[in-house]
Order: sequence, then C-alpha cells, then structure tokens
Amino acid sequence: MIHPLPTPGFSFELLATLGHARAGVLHTPRGDIPTPVFMPVGTQGTVKAMTAEELEAPPLDARIILGNTYHLFLRPGLEVMAAAGGLHAFAGWRRPILTDSGGFQVFSLAGINKIDDDGVTFASHLDGSRHRLTPEVSMQIQGVLGSDIAMAFDQCPPGDATPEVLDRAMARTTAWADRCLAVARPPGQALFGIVQGGIDLDRRRRHAEALTARAFDGIALGGLSVGEPIAEMHRILDAFAHELPAARPRYLMGVGTPLDLERGVAAGVDMFDCVMPTRNARNGFLFVSKDADPRGKVTISNARYKTDLGPVDPACPCATCANHSRAYLRHLHMANEVLYLRLATLHNLTFYARHMRALRDRILLEGTPA
Amino acid sequence: MIHPLPTPGFSFELLATLGHARAGVLHTPRGDIPTPVFMPVGTQGTVKAMTAEELEAPPLDARIILGNTYHLFLRPGLEVMAAAGGLHAFAGWRRPILTDSGGFQVFSLAGINKIDDDGVTFASHLDGSRHRLTPEVSMQIQGVLGSDIAMAFDQCPPGDATPEVLDRAMARTTAWADRCLAVARPPGQALFGIVQGGIDLDRRRRHAEALTARAFDGIALGGLSVGEPIAEMHRILDAFAHELPAARPRYLMGVGTPLDLERGVAAGVDMFDCVMPTRNARNGFLFVSKDADPRGKVTISNARYKTDLGPVDPACPCATCANHSRAYLRHLHMANEVLYLRLATLHNLTFYARHMRALRDRILLEGTPA
Repeated sequence: MIHPLPTPGFSFELLATLGHARAGVLHTPRGDIPTPVFMPVGTQGTVKAMTAEELEAPPLDARIILGNTYHLFLRPGLEVMAAAGGLHAFAGWRRPILTDSGGFQVFSLAGINKIDDDGVTFASHLDGSRHRLTPEVSMQIQGVLGSDIAMAFDQCPPGDATPEVLDRAMARTTAWADRCLAVARPPGQALFGIVQGGIDLDRRRRHAEALTARAFDGIALGGLSVGEPIAEMHRILDAFAHELPAARPRYLMGVGTPLDLERGVAAGVDMFDCVMPTRNARNGFLFVSKDADPRGKVTISNARYKTDLGPVDPACPCATCANHSRAYLRHLHMANEVLYLRLATLHNLTFYARHMRALRDRILLEGTPA
Repeated sequence: MIHPLPTPGFSFELLATLGHARAGVLHTPRGDIPTPVFMPVGTQGTVKAMTAEELEAPPLDARIILGNTYHLFLRPGLEVMAAAGGLHAFAGWRRPILTDSGGFQVFSLAGINKIDDDGVTFASHLDGSRHRLTPEVSMQIQGVLGSDIAMAFDQCPPGDATPEVLDRAMARTTAWADRCLAVARPPGQALFGIVQGGIDLDRRRRHAEALTARAFDGIALGGLSVGEPIAEMHRILDAFAHELPAARPRYLMGVGTPLDLERGVAAGVDMFDCVMPTRNARNGFLFVSKDADPRGKVTISNARYKTDLGPVDPACPCATCANHSRAYLRHLHMANEVLYLRLATLHNLTFYARHMRALRDRILLEGTPA
C-alpha cells in the first residue's frame, strides 16, 4: 500500500509487516529507498574514506547517506555550498541525502553560549567563532545544502535530563517544529519532525501526539542513545515505536549496534543512522558474522591475526573480504596506512547494509503483505 | 631489437631512440613494462591510499610498483611475508614489483650502530630493535618478498661525501654486488646492480665499468638526489647515463620532479621511482599541466580555490578530475578527510604516468627505430 506524504514527490510504500516490523520503500524524487534502511554518515561532505562510487556499488549499495548541517555550515560554509549548487553536486553523490538540523552537534560539540526559546548561540569547535542557529537558520542551511530529507531543528536533552529539562526541550521542539514547517523549502525536500521525551513513555506519547499532528513526511525518535541505559532505550522502542503513524517512515536517530538495529526494526522502525560502522572500522573493530567469530567482531590489531590469511569474514561479499586477508589488514592497521581505513570502512558498511537487507528479506518472506 | 637479459624470462626490447632517449619494453614473467616508466612507491606493502585495482586501471595503469625491503622486513616481518607467499599475494598486486635492497633506508632512517665491510648493524626506527643487514640477508629478504626485480645491496653515501667516503662506498658496493649475485634467487627474479660515485664523472665511469661487467639484468644510478645541487645531478645524468650498456634497462633511483624525469629520459634513463607524486599529493601539492596553471602545480589549500568548481586539471583524464572540483578537494584537504588523500594521490600518480607516456610517445614518433 502506497501512502502519499505531504511533500510532492515523496511517498511511503508498505510492503509487509512481521509483528511490529515493517518492510517498505520510501519513494523520493532522487530514487527509491528500501526500508528498513541504514544510512551511512557523511559528516563533512564525505562518508569517511569512501567514494560515491564505492558507496553505490553492490553489495554495499547505499541508497541514502547523511550530511551534517553543523559541520558543513562551519566548513566549507554556505558560500561554497551555494556556489557548488548544493551538497549533491559538491560531493558528487546522486542518490538521496538526509541532513540533520545541526541541533545535535551544537549541543554535543560546540561551546554553548546561550540557549533560549528563539534558538542557540554557540562557539565553533573549530575556531571558537560565534554563530547562531534557529529553526529558520537551520532550514535555510538545509535548503542551501539541498538535501532530500531535512530534519526539524530540535533540542536534544542528555540521557540524564530532569523532567523539567525534558518538558522544556519538548515544548521548544514543538514550537520550533512549527517554525521549521513555516519555512519554504526547495522543491523535492521532505521534512521530518523529531519526537523527544527521554525514556519516559508518557512524555514520548504526548510529544508524538503533538508532532504527528503536523505535516511532517516522517517522524524521528531523537534523544535516544544519548547516555541512558541501553535497556531503557530498548524498553521505549518496544513500547512506543509501533504507535507512531503507520503511513509515514519512522527514523531512530544515531542508533546503533547491529543488535540495536534488530531491536529497532522489530519495534517498527524504518530508518537508522550511526557513525558506529565507520568509526569502529577506523579504530580497528570489524563486524563479522557469528560463524566467522562467535563474538561477532574482529579486533584487527590482535596478534592472533598476524599470519591469518583468511578474509575478515568468509561470508562477506565485499571487495575487502574478496581480495585481502586479515594478516594484510592487520599490517596496514599497525602501519597506520590509509588503505586500512578504506578496506575496513567498506567492510563494516557492507556488514550493516547486509544486516538490514537480511532483516528486510525476513519480513518480506515471513510477514503479512500490507 | 630484443636483448635477452641474464635472468631467464627477462628481456629488454629497444623500440626507438631520440638523441640519448630510448623507448622500449622491459619484458618480465609477470608482464610487460613499457619504458621509460615511472614506478609508484609502495613503501609498506601499499602505494599509500591506493588499491591495486586503482593502480592498474587506465589512465594510471601502473605496470610496476616498488616495495621497500627495510620497511617490510621490520613490519610485518619475514614470518608474515613467508606465510603469505610473498609480497604480491600479501598485497594483492599481480603486476611486477621492484624491491630496493634496504640499504638506502638503513642509511637514511635507521640508527646506524656499525658499518663494516661485511654489512650494517642498525636500530629500527620503529622500536629501536637491533638488526643486521648484509648482502646475503638483503637477498634473502627480497627472495621471501618474491619481487620481480631485486636490487643489489649497496652503500649510498650522502651528496656531500668526501672522495675517501665515495671510494670506500664504491669498493664496498662492488664487493657486495658479487655477494648478491652469488645468492640463489627465486625463479623469475631479476637483479639490478647500483652504480655509485657521487657527482664525480670519473668515479661514475670507473664504478660503472666494474658493475656492468657483472651479470646484472639492469643498471641503476644510485647516490643521486641525495643532497647534491640539482644542476650537478643533471650534469652527471647528461654526461654519463647514455654510456651505460644499451642492451640493459637503466634505472635512476629516487628521482624526481617531472622536469628531472624529462632530463633523465633525455639522458637515456629508462626507469624512475620517487615518493614525490604520492607525498606531495598528501601535503596538498597537485601536479597540473602548464595550461591549467603556468607554474605546473596547484597548492590546494590556497583560498583562491575555495569556490573553484573546475577540475584540478581540465586536461587530466583521472577520476578525480572527471568527478570532483578544486573546491571539493580543498574542503576535504582542510577537513583532513581521508578521501582527499585518495583523490589527490590518484591525480598525481596519473600525472606522472601520463608525463612518462607522453615522453615515450614522442620518442616513438620522432625517434629512430632501434
């Protein structure tokens, strides 16, 4: 069943459900995104160490990537992005891009000078220069970036926030949602709203009620995986994700491990992003099937791999596993070679992509047609 | 005219000459190498930031790369290299590899504990561990690496060496040459000798006489670009390179700029290697045609490229120039992104490959068939 979304050119097709889990397709003007989907993070106009061609090529076949508004706003800045005609042209990426609002990075990376009901004044983590981000400015930046999916500017409180802080963040996020919706967007740009409320189910429900009443093309779960116990995140997901409107995609922001993704999909989430596969790759942690290693991971610096001529994961069809041994990757890692970063990133992103496709295939095979 | 070389499976085909410049083909069991040729340097089992596929793909189409005996001996070490079955299998590179003898790095990188007529005792630049390199050990390591062309272990004196130091280095290099030739090599491994003698033409001639009388498959010019004035290097090249035997390939070690290569080819040199294209790329210096920039280079960090949407070099057919702007490369460079290292290295290596092919084409077109 195809559900039109508020923004022309976008629709969400539900194909099958299995429990709360859903398999579908998010149709966008720049191409189809089979869901559930994991979105690689391209913080500074590049998914670290990867080319667009590598991201697009099967078996990785990334259908959508992320761009970070905060980082791109600071460097290279809007003058460059506008001159280039947006992030797609600048980075040479032809498929959809989702941009965050900049809010999360402002709260986690920058020095906060002032936060009020109008927006946030912050100091750049690069050079200390002072900037102001408001819902209108965030939408303006995302408009220049020309992303396919923009995110509403929200306030994301930490995992240990008091009820008062949670309530104020929710109220602000709702007010800012309306201001974001009021900004004219470039053609072909959808807008997702973000539900806050911490790990309090009542608050989540209340905030979702407010957000879903608005003309967002999708609903995101923000404020999870921000320091709260993982079991609490899973509890909220299990109890709450499936209550969000079925006709719009649901996006769990910044999460997580392969197990988190499995829990999220089972709870009814359609979209995920996380730096974990790319960052862990760079730090020497490779995701593998349980057959390759019972713990599901290879710590490539381990001396046991010194003369291990087998692939990182015999079950993996990526070019790294097809062409190179654990011994070679370990050597490159120990020698701080750039090629290690490439091979490891390609492998971990392929692992995540295959993980999501396996979950999707299972929903299609065992589930009920929608 | 095809000249058989001493090692079975190797021959050197001279196609044309233009003045002292020569165009030919070095035939090896692992494939043909059109000459003059530039050999990208793969210090630690990888040409930094590149995959084997990228090096092989036209228009770069690298026909032979270098491996550094000193680095690979220290890390990953011979146990790993032997287990992998040599450097080709370890690094996934199917075309020819030339390995240096380790001597140059021992003298330039390591802490020298002792040097005598038998060999060199040195301390690793990585962990200070003590090792000994002799002609026999160098050949043994290069045998395990399984390179297609091994280099004889030589003593390379600095550019300001006294006559006494030059003479002793020449005498040692000659004695070590015999010891290298006496070591059994794996099938399909050629051996080149190295002529020393600094910038003294008489010494060069004397040492060449000694070296070329031996059963080397090729003759290298060592001890140039080691601190002497560039004009002195050019003088030696002009006066001397063409005097080396015509029937064997001539290799100028560790040189140089695009202009140096042109001078070397004009003087009769067939093979070159240098870290300049790869290292300069990483440091932000891109080689371009005179049409693209009269100075023949782009310093990508320059603010003038901030919104420059043109390619690094409009005349360059590499994927970097086909797909990306100077503005994007500048952004990636300023943001310390790994993708910059990849794109810049690919471009600079392609520039060097095209430079050599243009020189070769000119010799074939304007020269005299051999």
